[in-house]
Amino acid sequence: MKLGFIGLGIMGKPMAKNLVKAGHDLTVFDFKEDAVEELVADGATEAKTGKEVAEKSDVIFTMVPNSPNVEAALFNEGGVAEGLTAGKTVIDMSSINPLASQGFAKRLAKLNVGFLDAPVSGGEPKAIDGSIAIMVGGDKDLYEKNKDLLEIMGGSVTYVGAVGAGNTTKLANQVIVALNIAAVSEGFALAKKAGLDPKMVFDAIHTGLAGSTVMDAKVPMMIDRNFKPGFRVDLHIKDLQNALDTSHALHVGLPLTAEVMEILQVVKNDGNGGDDHSAIAKFYEKINDLTID
Amino acid sequence: MKLGFIGLGIMGKPMAKNLVKAGHDLTVFDFKEDAVEELVADGATEAKTGKEVAEKSDVIFTMVPNSPNVEAALFNEGGVAEGLTAGKTVIDMSSINPLASQGFAKRLAKLNVGFLDAPVSGGEPKAIDGSIAIMVGGDKDLYEKNKDLLEIMGGSVTYVGAVGAGNTTKLANQVIVALNIAAVSEGFALAKKAGLDPKMVFDAIHTGLAGSTVMDAKVPMMIDRNFKPGFRVDLHIKDLQNALDTSHALHVGLPLTAEVMEILQVVKNDGNGGDDHSAIAKFYEKINDLTID
Amino acid sequence: MKLGFIGLGIMGKPMAKNLVKAGHDLTVFDFKEDAVEELVADGATEAKTGKEVAEKSDVIFTMVPNSPNVEAALFNEGGVAEGLTAGKTVIDMSSINPLASQGFAKRLAKLNVGFLDAPVSGGEPKAIDGSIAIMVGGDKDLYEKNKDLLEIMGGSVTYVGAVGAGNTTKLANQVIVALNIAAVSEGFALAKKAGLDPKMVFDAIHTGLAGSTVMDAKVPMMIDRNFKPGFRVDLHIKDLQNALDTSHALHVGLPLTAEVMEILQVVKNDGNGGDDHSAIAKFYEKINDLTID
Amino acid sequence: MKLGFIGLGIMGKPMAKNLVKAGHDLTVFDFKEDAVEELVADGATEAKTGKEVAEKSDVIFTMVPNSPNVEAALFNEGGVAEGLTAGKTVIDMSSINPLASQGFAKRLAKLNVGFLDAPVSGGEPKAIDGSIAIMVGGDKDLYEKNKDLLEIMGGSVTYVGAVGAGNTTKLANQVIVALNIAAVSEGFALAKKAGLDPKMVFDAIHTGLAGSTVMDAKVPMMIDRNFKPGFRVDLHIKDLQNALDTSHALHVGLPLTAEVMEILQVVKNDGNGGDDHSAIAKFYEKINDLTID
Ligand SMILES: NC(=O)C1=CN([C@@H]2O[C@H](COP(=O)(O)OP(=O)(O)OC[C@H]3O[C@@H](n4cnc5c(N)ncnc54)[C@H](OP(=O)(O)O)[C@@H]3O)[C@@H](O)[C@H]2O)C=CC1
Ligand SMILES: NC(=O)C1=CN([C@@H]2O[C@H](COP(=O)(O)OP(=O)(O)OC[C@H]3O[C@@H](n4cnc5c(N)ncnc54)[C@H](OP(=O)(O)O)[C@@H]3O)[C@@H](O)[C@H]2O)C=CC1
Ligand SMILES: NC(=O)C1=CN([C@@H]2O[C@H](COP(=O)(O)OP(=O)(O)OC[C@H]3O[C@@H](n4cnc5c(N)ncnc54)[C@H](OP(=O)(O)O)[C@@H]3O)[C@@H](O)[C@H]2O)C=CC1
Repeated sequence: MKLGFIGLGIMGKPMAKNLVKAGHDLTVFDFKEDAVEELVADGATEAKTGKEVAEKSDVIFTMVPNSPNVEAALFNEGGVAEGLTAGKTVIDMSSINPLASQGFAKRLAKLNVGFLDAPVSGGEPKAIDGSIAIMVGGDKDLYEKNKDLLEIMGGSVTYVGAVGAGNTTKLANQVIVALNIAAVSEGFALAKKAGLDPKMVFDAIHTGLAGSTVMDAKVPMMIDRNFKPGFRVDLHIKDLQNALDTSHALHVGLPLTAEVMEILQVVKNDGNGGDDHSAIAKFYEKINDLTID
Repeated sequence: MKLGFIGLGIMGKPMAKNLVKAGHDLTVFDFKEDAVEELVADGATEAKTGKEVAEKSDVIFTMVPNSPNVEAALFNEGGVAEGLTAGKTVIDMSSINPLASQGFAKRLAKLNVGFLDAPVSGGEPKAIDGSIAIMVGGDKDLYEKNKDLLEIMGGSVTYVGAVGAGNTTKLANQVIVALNIAAVSEGFALAKKAGLDPKMVFDAIHTGLAGSTVMDAKVPMMIDRNFKPGFRVDLHIKDLQNALDTSHALHVGLPLTAEVMEILQVVKNDGNGGDDHSAIAKFYEKINDLTID
Repeated sequence: MKLGFIGLGIMGKPMAKNLVKAGHDLTVFDFKEDAVEELVADGATEAKTGKEVAEKSDVIFTMVPNSPNVEAALFNEGGVAEGLTAGKTVIDMSSINPLASQGFAKRLAKLNVGFLDAPVSGGEPKAIDGSIAIMVGGDKDLYEKNKDLLEIMGGSVTYVGAVGAGNTTKLANQVIVALNIAAVSEGFALAKKAGLDPKMVFDAIHTGLAGSTVMDAKVPMMIDRNFKPGFRVDLHIKDLQNALDTSHALHVGLPLTAEVMEILQVVKNDGNGGDDHSAIAKFYEKINDLTID
Repeated sequence: MKLGFIGLGIMGKPMAKNLVKAGHDLTVFDFKEDAVEELVADGATEAKTGKEVAEKSDVIFTMVPNSPNVEAALFNEGGVAEGLTAGKTVIDMSSINPLASQGFAKRLAKLNVGFLDAPVSGGEPKAIDGSIAIMVGGDKDLYEKNKDLLEIMGGSVTYVGAVGAGNTTKLANQVIVALNIAAVSEGFALAKKAGLDPKMVFDAIHTGLAGSTVMDAKVPMMIDRNFKPGFRVDLHIKDLQNALDTSHALHVGLPLTAEVMEILQVVKNDGNGGDDHSAIAKFYEKINDLTID
């Protein structure tokens, strides 16, 4: 089977490399010449447009920033759609608005092209070692047919429902992660203001009911004043915007998510959009005149 | 060394039993006759007042609901203070307001009586098998001297700073737990409203960055519609009230904690104060007309 | 001077009628035949497209629901832009995203067409009697030139700055109105739950520092269980979405606005999108199991 | 009828003076010698204790900061209760927790002493010119009997229900005022960040639906950078604490009130507790790096 990959960024590049490493015939396209050349050196074939990728591939993966980028990659002039023929499959692995996924699926269905939304969780290191988590929405049979391919890139691949379900799951994930970061920020801000040593508090509570992957991963970063990403504030703003756009379309009230979004705006406004999302703590540090260290 | 224990409730009873089982000479007091008799059957000695407990013991443990109960147990007529002499130690293991702990320590210091605040985390099952986490505030030497005793009751015992630090740590813990429950509630409410199966979403995300002890422990309860405590909404309201009283005394802003407190009021008002705190989800189910199952 | 008017809805129809009544030569267009015919009966001229309106008019007013509708009216095939020539003026009186206003102004400037954003405040009755408040953004000279026309439709016309300023002012207004409604809802929910008679509370406080146009206009509606609009929840959701889109573009944190937006989602989800925005009170009634009457 | 007055602070002093000016025989007590002497110069009689005030008076007014102060004034050694006899009346005009008012009423009822809670709204200038608003809770007949006295001190006197209703009404008032200040802060923060002139925005919207007594009184203060009280942040924190203590006792969820309380903590922590409560705007200025001027 011939594969195509569009979007060779922080995540896409290592994911594409893993496909090549697994012996697949891969055609790639990205605006960044460097990334394309790196893949070609690994054995991939360069394409000059998305259309060309589609023409040469049976399954085309996209891994770009947000809904408008996926739309552009698929449907702009010279885009994937122009190179598609009946029976091919598009798998979008970007984290985007699930309503957009559903729209793309419908447009591709008219060409008799299958579509899966398969966003991932886990950062660059997990993309490199092929251990990202992949949550997949779409036709169950189409999922089964492409599961092996996804398992090359991910440590766990989970089917979660109809088209859009992958991204909805990812949004739920991002809502929870953002709130869990805010949660530790509030708890540790309280402790710090009361004069405690955050390191001692961490030792006392991280194995109990308050424990979380976020606490283990992010509180030591806060204490060490290390806000190197990881996952950038800017990306989390994008994800919460998609979450809120989705929740507002469904009319589901998410008061704390909305609140954390405002906190992220403040963090961004203070020039920390490029920080790791653990910088949510900086909002609490700012308003309460303290540092969690 | 002779030990005393006051407050033989859900948590105190098994903790006291573990002290007896470890071979300690224990004098106990509680309003509840049943619990006292059970301890006596195990080998403890009954006292009729806190004063009597204090007279017969070198170290007196208290495990009662909240700050006013500790105050009553210690300083009311017939209370512990009346039976204390210089050199004895009081260890309060209740989860209370850290500022109250500091007040009690001061009043006891006048009697040359040492004081540790040593609240615990982990529910009844962990109290029974002696694996609760204990976070201790107070004089470091006094802590060292009593560490062995605490280790009989707890799986992990952590020193976190001066008097009050134990309870501040516990409050930070409770803030984080409450927010983590709200976090999964928002994430899963969004997913449910979008038509997904919460069980599938759980499978897809619980091992990733969104994972938490709360997610593993509480989301399956929500899905199974099992709100049997565990840790009651009423107790969590008490803890967040202590957290907010403390944060307001320190003038530290905790917007999401304040928000979850309002959510808990609604849960309580709907008659669910006796539910497990995972019933925070019921607020989201109520406002959004859905159930996370 | 020849005038054009596009969008003869609840607000646009009476505003257009006031222009005709003042003796102006008016060409109108709307999808709704009825409204067009009513204006023609009053003396206006019917156009079949926006293009035709623009060809026949020196100043073209638009009064449609939201940014995409303005975009469609101006720039779709057969739209206003096709009929514009240098020196004409477009005055958009819809309440839309100010960033969209700025975009439209730029596109029209390329045709040497002037643009003002001039959203209004005050509902249908004030549109009928010509007493709405109009806040205008754009070139100051252009504003001065068109002020007389605006004064036909509005009781107060205020210049507030460059293009987009009209809509930003309108959004600030809508933020404040939504929060003031939530404010009285919280105050009266507390009073009601405490057993007081909302009418007595209203009498006691509405003339003091807590007094507001919202309190005088909306609390009696709540007490009388009259949620007939006035201004619909759906429109207020649109406005807060524009406010949050704008604040997120500027990275300004507005936590309470974000919170009220979630409240409005719940009100909408409960089937009350067509209610007057005083139905924000219904959220409080729902969560607290009471009615403010 | 002989009157007594306890608490001659910012509000109490001018209120007491108005009673003397109206020709009443008034006995006064306060810790502050200055204030007492000023009243004596006006014709009042000095008492050395609350007990003495009660002995010499038929109706005793209290106007002290908060619930514990009222409790101390009434029930401490040498307090009012010791000088009371059956048939006398206590009217507490302090702004306190309504549940405390109900407790005081019960304790006084045992002495056959009547009790009204009659907190006031409007600051020092209105206390001086006798135009404050007074909201009264308690027995309706007792209210009728004392209405004339209250009207000497207040411009409007409104009966709002059983004991505690006066303070509940006052708390509802304070909830609304705090939220209305936050509302204008959010609206004007948005406008300022978008580059608008707050003065122009004020002119454009203050007469419309967004208008409020708060907008007229406080926005010009923000623009002029004048945070001289008026009503201090510290007092508003006290009032919202009473509101939240009351709402939590009733289990009524007030999410925005809880949120503004956290904002006030930040304002206080930044050293602005003595500012006028319009300093709520400073929170928004701090988080968004702007000033509303
Ligand atoms: N339950 C849990 O899962 C956890 C609880 N905690 C904390 O542990 C503490 C105890 O909780 P829990 O055991 O559940 O509470 P319970 O209410 O079950 O037990 C408290 C016991 O103390 C007794 N008591 C109260 N006041 C006095 C007094 N003055 N003198 C003597 N006895 C008194 C009570 O008697 P009576 O009922 O007759 O008044 C009751 O038997 C709380 O602070 C709680 O927050 C911490 C971790 C987990
Ligand atoms: N209603 C109120 O109380 C107030 C409203 N406003 C604002 O005023 C604006 C208008 O509101 P309102 O009058 O209530 O809205 P309505 O929906 O009643 O009217 C809008 C009208 O515009 C027409 N329209 C939409 N798109 C086009 C187009 N491309 N070309 C021609 N006609 C078009 C609609 O036709 P069709 O329905 O067939 O699509 C409809 O007749 C909104 O931005 C609103 O927020 C401001 C203050 C108060
Ligand atoms: N200031 C304002 O604008 C408004 C205030 N209010 C409310 O009115 C009440 C009074 O406020 P305000 O006048 O500003 O407060 P102040 O602090 O200025 O005055 C209170 C006075 O009471 C005295 N006092 C306190 N306890 C006792 C006692 N046990 N016996 C005798 N005297 C006592 C205090 O003396 P000392 O200072 O020596 O302790 C002080 O002189 C408060 O509840 C406030 O919330 C209501 C509307 C507006």
